[in-house]
Amino acid sequence: MRLYTGLVHYPVYNKNREKITSAVTNLDLHDLSRISRTYGIKRFFVITPLTDQQEFVTELINHWKSGFGARYNVDRKEAIEVLEISASIEEAVDKIIEIEGERPVTIVTCASMVKEAISFNMAKEIIESNRVVLLLFGTAWGLHNDAIENADFVLKAIEGKNSYNHLPVRAAAGIIIDRLVGEYR
Amino acid sequence: MRLYTGLVHYPVYNKNREKITSAVTNLDLHDLSRISRTYGIKRFFVITPLTDQQEFVTELINHWKSGFGARYNVDRKEAIEVLEISASIEEAVDKIIEIEGERPVTIVTCASMVKEAISFNMAKEIIESNRVVLLLFGTAWGLHNDAIENADFVLKAIEGKNSYNHLPVRAAAGIIIDRLVGEYR
Repeated sequence: MRLYTGLVHYPVYNKNREKITSAVTNLDLHDLSRISRTYGIKRFFVITPLTDQQEFVTELINHWKSGFGARYNVDRKEAIEVLEISASIEEAVDKIIEIEGERPVTIVTCASMVKEAISFNMAKEIIESNRVVLLLFGTAWGLHNDAIENADFVLKAIEGKNSYNHLPVRAAAGIIIDRLVGEYR
Repeated sequence: MRLYTGLVHYPVYNKNREKITSAVTNLDLHDLSRISRTYGIKRFFVITPLTDQQEFVTELINHWKSGFGARYNVDRKEAIEVLEISASIEEAVDKIIEIEGERPVTIVTCASMVKEAISFNMAKEIIESNRVVLLLFGTAWGLHNDAIENADFVLKAIEGKNSYNHLPVRAAAGIIIDRLVGEYR
């Protein structure tokens, strides 16, 4: 499996459907790192163009990798090791090309229904075919259309049992990754 | 489907495997409420014996149900409506008996492997048989053995792709509920 994940802070929508850069959330990074580590994801990219936000993430990485946190909580240290900063989706793609020697297939996730979305089964097949895949999650009110347009595939939205569909990205990422690579009876 | 969820703050383990009452976390309540609402769960119980923590939860409910929050973010209001406070697991069971007229089957979730655990498929069958079910999640370092012993069933742990298995409860709850009631192709 050559699966990578990315949490996108730009370009995303705000509440009023304007294009914004969202703030990095400490907890999202921990949760997505733990999920990524649990499911054997090769690297989890935190994607933000803001240098102060990148510095915040670097400090967090250092705290848990080698600071007090590394001694206090080994589980977090292990999780944080998969985390890497990128200024843009394209930069994350370039880093993956460096590692894998080939361009990843990009799959974006989206809370609303998009006509041409691929099924979970199809995305699973792509991953199991050993293609390099970058799976992207949006923060705030979701990935901006620009990011969706540029992706190779859009994954079907998670449908619940009614019209309510406002999962936090921390839960949505866990559910989606489990559907794509989880194994159980 | 007559499924209920509960987030247990007592009895749980701390880092040193001592029996404690954990603090209620604002974000856990929002995330579990959203997940529960999305998957059509009838009620989500926040279980804590501490009265100051119960008051904190009541304030949170009031803020999002009728305070500023209700106007600012309707999605949160809708999610918070499934939330209810209980002093103990037994009190949550009693409340469910009042609503359903029968005792729920209790299923506890557990991050470590337990020999007599039931499979996800079996838990799914129990839920689909229209039995009343209370699915319990632990906070901190997991449900105390007392709660596990008292439950009707223990659900198999989520296994990742390696020995690392430290999912945040926010993600684990999403993944487990999706495995039990989610539908997709």
